[in-house]
Amino acid sequence: MNYTLLTDFYELTMANGYLKNGMKDKTAYFDMYYRQVPDDGGFAIMAGVEQLIQYLSELKFTKEDIEYLKSKNMFDEEFIEYLENFEFKCDVWAVPEGTPIFPNEPMVTVRGPLMQAQFIETMILLTVNHQSLIATKCSRIVRAADGRPVMEFGSRRAQGYDGAIYGARAAYIGGAVGTACTISDKMFGVPALGTMAHSWVQSFDSEYDAFKAYAEVYPDNCTLLVDTYNVLKSGVPNAIKVFDEVLKPKGITNMGIRIDSGDITYLTKKARIMLDEAGYENAKIVVSNSLDEYIIRDIIAQGAKIDSFGVGERLITSKSEPVFGGVYKLVAVEENGEVIPKIKVSENVAKITTPYFKKVWRLFSNETGKAIADVLTTYDEKIDDSNDYEIFDPEHTWKRKTVTDFTAKELMVQLFSNGECVYTSPKLEDIKNYSMNQLDTFWDEVKRFENPHQYYVDMSSKLWDIRYKLLSEYK
Amino acid sequence: MNYTLLTDFYELTMANGYLKNGMKDKTAYFDMYYRQVPDDGGFAIMAGVEQLIQYLSELKFTKEDIEYLKSKNMFDEEFIEYLENFEFKCDVWAVPEGTPIFPNEPMVTVRGPLMQAQFIETMILLTVNHQSLIATKCSRIVRAADGRPVMEFGSRRAQGYDGAIYGARAAYIGGAVGTACTISDKMFGVPALGTMAHSWVQSFDSEYDAFKAYAEVYPDNCTLLVDTYNVLKSGVPNAIKVFDEVLKPKGITNMGIRIDSGDITYLTKKARIMLDEAGYENAKIVVSNSLDEYIIRDIIAQGAKIDSFGVGERLITSKSEPVFGGVYKLVAVEENGEVIPKIKVSENVAKITTPYFKKVWRLFSNETGKAIADVLTTYDEKIDDSNDYEIFDPEHTWKRKTVTDFTAKELMVQLFSNGECVYTSPKLEDIKNYSMNQLDTFWDEVKRFENPHQYYVDMSSKLWDIRYKLLSEYK
Repeated sequence: MNYTLLTDFYELTMANGYLKNGMKDKTAYFDMYYRQVPDDGGFAIMAGVEQLIQYLSELKFTKEDIEYLKSKNMFDEEFIEYLENFEFKCDVWAVPEGTPIFPNEPMVTVRGPLMQAQFIETMILLTVNHQSLIATKCSRIVRAADGRPVMEFGSRRAQGYDGAIYGARAAYIGGAVGTACTISDKMFGVPALGTMAHSWVQSFDSEYDAFKAYAEVYPDNCTLLVDTYNVLKSGVPNAIKVFDEVLKPKGITNMGIRIDSGDITYLTKKARIMLDEAGYENAKIVVSNSLDEYIIRDIIAQGAKIDSFGVGERLITSKSEPVFGGVYKLVAVEENGEVIPKIKVSENVAKITTPYFKKVWRLFSNETGKAIADVLTTYDEKIDDSNDYEIFDPEHTWKRKTVTDFTAKELMVQLFSNGECVYTSPKLEDIKNYSMNQLDTFWDEVKRFENPHQYYVDMSSKLWDIRYKLLSEYK
Repeated sequence: MNYTLLTDFYELTMANGYLKNGMKDKTAYFDMYYRQVPDDGGFAIMAGVEQLIQYLSELKFTKEDIEYLKSKNMFDEEFIEYLENFEFKCDVWAVPEGTPIFPNEPMVTVRGPLMQAQFIETMILLTVNHQSLIATKCSRIVRAADGRPVMEFGSRRAQGYDGAIYGARAAYIGGAVGTACTISDKMFGVPALGTMAHSWVQSFDSEYDAFKAYAEVYPDNCTLLVDTYNVLKSGVPNAIKVFDEVLKPKGITNMGIRIDSGDITYLTKKARIMLDEAGYENAKIVVSNSLDEYIIRDIIAQGAKIDSFGVGERLITSKSEPVFGGVYKLVAVEENGEVIPKIKVSENVAKITTPYFKKVWRLFSNETGKAIADVLTTYDEKIDDSNDYEIFDPEHTWKRKTVTDFTAKELMVQLFSNGECVYTSPKLEDIKNYSMNQLDTFWDEVKRFENPHQYYVDMSSKLWDIRYKLLSEYK
């Protein structure tokens, strides 16, 4: 599938317009960033970089694409030729996948010919918005599960095929241990697991027959779904009977049951007692009924006896907040080799952009290892962590703090240089481990589900001055 | 892209298990249906059938798929061979795309070898859930716009590439006039449109220069984005100046402006006056800022002066209700040529299934042309519309009504017969027109956004008896 034309039509009308206006070789700078953390959380998790790289590496207008564009009768011949011979020439930087990210700091920065840097807007946003949304949601759910494994189970309710496939990938980055989505295992190595649906149970003459047949085929992967008829009166007793008859004689102890409906707290407490009394203290209880971080937190607090969670539609669509509102804004152009900052003013103050070609730094305390603040600087600044550094709130500039004994790390890595990919995506497993480690650099206060501590994202004085000057000009 | 392994892993473990249990040739019946209308609306719009047909027509396990499955060390050799030589053998029926559908009636019915009919569950649900969700949401938004055109603008916030591509298709079925998603135009003929982003305006030395340059390149498609700096102080005046200088001399009158931020009611009223006073009564005002059916209804009620809407994230993700909860349930098996009904009981009464191989009928009044009720019958019943017909509420069976002078229409069409496709999807344009016509067969009371009239979905006495008998057996 060639996604080159997966772009908003205006990217094409603008590109053609730039060409006609002699701006073909004008260099522009764009930032992708987001404005608000989904679910009012404290941070988001960056994801989608590997797919972004793939898209940018494969950018190519096929003959069919060209025919289609010609048929619109809107584009100049010179533009069509430009697309036929399209060569990607941008520089691209991004925050690596798995990194906790905060509002209003660049996640992706693009420098290159205005026509190209503009054209790739839609796919940058689509790719990174989607996976960051799901990784962020999954991170919340995994934190709610408090050490219990979380499986992603949502393919059937995903918003399209890629919603399922890349959603499973993003969920894994966010901390899920696996997925039900088989193709995501094949493509990315997200471990796929699964046992049975209600239809298995219904297909046999009795629940007992169904359980027994399953245990005989899969003695080592035997999680029985116990809620087709009645969890406590038939499901759990039949499961125990089959454990006794089929698994116990083989010395197998890693069996389990799954409950997919009813009152999870009540049913798991009762089921736990029944399993324990039958001698199956090691049998796992898996639950999977319209769960999210709030329900998981509640039922754990109520003492539900759960070993792992299968989370479906509320994870794969991020149901409570299904949009990651990343935007892609022009922040500078080059004129005679000079970088000229550009701003978008708005009636809505939150929509005013931060201009210029920038770097993002994260400052870590050497004493605690914890992150102190992120700082945006201009591209030609360097934060010298051998000295103290004063940060200040860009909105309330009288709020100042001197940071001492810290290490400054640049957050973005370069993906493309003059159109050539210069970055190798880590293995998915490594991205996940990196993400878990990065999460540990944040205090619990930032990770709270509601009303989290607001982590600082500040600006250098130089950058602040550039922004203030431009704002004053337009007011 | 081969989506054969886009399936929940348990579909594979179950299929292998059925084979091992000698149930390879057992015939099963599954229904897909949904339980609750998104956003508490009165109905949903069926969509996704064309893509479902494509998936089922292309079902094939590639060598890579087979290698992957072997590597899991869970499946028998006989099963792997079965997959290598997979031949789809099911019968499939579905409600045609664009049809208004109601909870608890089959949208898709599958009859075939249990192993196969089970295996295709995930993709049937994924495909139909996604597109029906977006078509349903778009139908609400289009109704709120009350005759004004609605464009789908959401690609950048969609949940994955297919979320954008097929979302645009589904939105078109739901009544959108077009999309910003170029590839959906190329693939399906959903008209793609677009003009400029804020970055266009920022890329020039002034807003006036940007507008003038655009108008000169696209005099016939000139909708100027007027909110980069200040809508009323600079955007609209600059637009008028450019209309005067560039378009008026050419005799062009179909120009427009777009507003993407700020208070839409206030700004459009003021902008309308400014345009009218400058002699541009025909200039269109397009708005596009986080809209949905509720905001559109409100701003129209407040007298906002709007000619058309661009709707993004809240349409393409169905933000207020991002899950279409379709389910796929075993309803019958065959034993010795006889169809044996199967039921899933649940603590949650709403999750109890309606068993048996069924038909869905819609009864239309001959007098008004309006739909009266839907009726589920067994597969071997026929509703004779030359006689009166008594319908009754399946939950409150004392609620009865005799329908007279009506026409009964079967809702489902056959897509596959013994694995062969026997249906040709209509053109997208025809699906959309069919949908608009079908909507007209429902009273306004059913189309209300909140607290709509509950349309009847009843059962024949024969079907009701089958369900009641099974329920009694399990209680």
